[in-house]
Amino acid sequence: MKVGGVAYRAISLDGDGWGVRVIDQTVLPHRFDVVRLETVEDTARAIRTMLVRGAPLIGATAVYGVALAMRSDPSDASLDSAVELLAGTRPTAVNLRWALDHVRESLQELPAAGRADAAYRAARSVCDEDVERNRSIGRHGLAMLHELAGDAGRALERPLNVLTHCNAGWLATVDWGTATSAIYQGHDAGLQVHVWVDETRPRLQGATLTAWELGQHGVPHTVIPDSAAAYIMRKREVDVVIVGTDRTTGCGDVANKIGTYPLALAAADNEVPFYVAVPSPSIDWGTEDAGLIPIEERDAGEVTSVRGVDVEQVPRAVRITPAKSRAMNYAFDVTPRRLVTGLITERGICGASGDELRRLFPDHR
Amino acid sequence: MKVGGVAYRAISLDGDGWGVRVIDQTVLPHRFDVVRLETVEDTARAIRTMLVRGAPLIGATAVYGVALAMRSDPSDASLDSAVELLAGTRPTAVNLRWALDHVRESLQELPAAGRADAAYRAARSVCDEDVERNRSIGRHGLAMLHELAGDAGRALERPLNVLTHCNAGWLATVDWGTATSAIYQGHDAGLQVHVWVDETRPRLQGATLTAWELGQHGVPHTVIPDSAAAYIMRKREVDVVIVGTDRTTGCGDVANKIGTYPLALAAADNEVPFYVAVPSPSIDWGTEDAGLIPIEERDAGEVTSVRGVDVEQVPRAVRITPAKSRAMNYAFDVTPRRLVTGLITERGICGASGDELRRLFPDHR
Repeated sequence: MKVGGVAYRAISLDGDGWGVRVIDQTVLPHRFDVVRLETVEDTARAIRTMLVRGAPLIGATAVYGVALAMRSDPSDASLDSAVELLAGTRPTAVNLRWALDHVRESLQELPAAGRADAAYRAARSVCDEDVERNRSIGRHGLAMLHELAGDAGRALERPLNVLTHCNAGWLATVDWGTATSAIYQGHDAGLQVHVWVDETRPRLQGATLTAWELGQHGVPHTVIPDSAAAYIMRKREVDVVIVGTDRTTGCGDVANKIGTYPLALAAADNEVPFYVAVPSPSIDWGTEDAGLIPIEERDAGEVTSVRGVDVEQVPRAVRITPAKSRAMNYAFDVTPRRLVTGLITERGICGASGDELRRLFPDHR
Repeated sequence: MKVGGVAYRAISLDGDGWGVRVIDQTVLPHRFDVVRLETVEDTARAIRTMLVRGAPLIGATAVYGVALAMRSDPSDASLDSAVELLAGTRPTAVNLRWALDHVRESLQELPAAGRADAAYRAARSVCDEDVERNRSIGRHGLAMLHELAGDAGRALERPLNVLTHCNAGWLATVDWGTATSAIYQGHDAGLQVHVWVDETRPRLQGATLTAWELGQHGVPHTVIPDSAAAYIMRKREVDVVIVGTDRTTGCGDVANKIGTYPLALAAADNEVPFYVAVPSPSIDWGTEDAGLIPIEERDAGEVTSVRGVDVEQVPRAVRITPAKSRAMNYAFDVTPRRLVTGLITERGICGASGDELRRLFPDHR
């Protein structure tokens, strides 16, 4: 999507054909920095420190990390240690593990000399597939938005109001985003859309990343505290919720950014349709019980301090809590399938159930 | 309650017997400043800028504001303009309007010369009544906590986990607090209590005020993002929710800090008892339809910027959103009575319904 009128992807190869360029998402929206990754350690650090984040982008970045490792040392030991290093960065994203296992398997069969090239090809194809998948998710999502706008159009003289949480935008993927893909495609096609952006404490991915990318693309939006979403639904000012997912079980339970579950409760209580954009690599076919999904607990400092810029635009962190107060920081929660209106996949929209998912993906792993 | 071992009330007369001392709640928890109010304008500004906040404390402060006005000019015109100035500061707190109308009525009957003294007496008695009322709320709440601890005690080898939102602590009242009163009384009596403190965006009254006052009193607590409360309930780590209220209708619908309604939804979905501490002056007997409660919309800057201290302990505000992104800031929401387990009043605990409320308050206005 566009930044200041120039088309970007969230990850791309640098001009020399081997360094990897990513956007530093920790300094957005106040600064736009492109960072070059040259080693697997750079890559693991970028994922762990959330320079890059979002399940699809993490997967793509990790495969480039393997490529960088193979370029410097294509041995079996190097391959294994790269995969283990990268897999340990973020425990909840299922497609990270999957992408890494898949690339390891295919590289192991090759002679060492051919592994770097093959890994770069694999990374490029992971990226291109992500873009196509998100485009399809957006196409199906847009059909749903058009239907809602048609229904709502008779009663409302205002834009269609979509609410989203965290950032499941193009910054979380290679391009288009998952939850935002329908919004961008609709906006580009002339549909009047306004987006309620949950700020998404503690890391504020909504207030910083989603607001920024919507603003750069010209999509009208309003940032709200996470806890205001329910009241705004109550006021009938939300037509539909679309969120992303870090991992969705084969039964349709949805692990996503902390705060997704109460949002789904509010949507259900106010009869607002609640959709999850689910690229198929985020589906964890092997996990039936959502209680078994590991929920990452992050540093409490993300809760006790907030980062932003002061009046002189200098980046600063401020502590908000008393020095001695303890804080806790679960990164994700699980939304039970009973609260989900539909899953928007690249193959179409289905109900949140194992049967419906298997109908769309009869070939699932 | 105690600050650094010294007993304080959130509002008190200064040593000279006419100036009014309040704690500046906008600089907590990073600084403890006591501010002196000398005019009705000082008082209105203190309420509007949230130097003081919380429905009970706002009511008490406003009556002291009338006393300060009467001290400088006891005329009818001065009385009317003081009441109007103060009543316009915060539209959602019903007891503010009620306290002001009540004091105006009683002062109007007096000769001008007697009004200042009478107003000071009225303010003192509003404060003393608030303290007694909160003590009673705490006594009833504590009985409920003991019952829960007894039930839970057999299954759990951990403290009783109470979750609260915003600040309905002693800083929101004259002393004890409403939602916190049972917690303080329980803690003082040796009950093992741990409090989950919702940070309460956008103004962070939980992260700043509730965490601070619990810490000063030695009550174990953990600050969480508002949107994490539902997941923590899901993990069965919350035994009971207790919140305050800015206004509760005669039917039992509860207007309180934005985010209370989704919290109640999460409690209901996880079968966690959800109690509201309701001092009777917060009951709006005249409003049947909670939809008619005016919901204050505050400055969007409270959402786009966050205040705290930097590493050198210098107070700073940081902007978190892109410069051009719009934000919206509703201060309250309404929790429908169907989601409320019980109302903890100074006369006991009752169900959230008109019948139950009238049973406890047959003499209601």
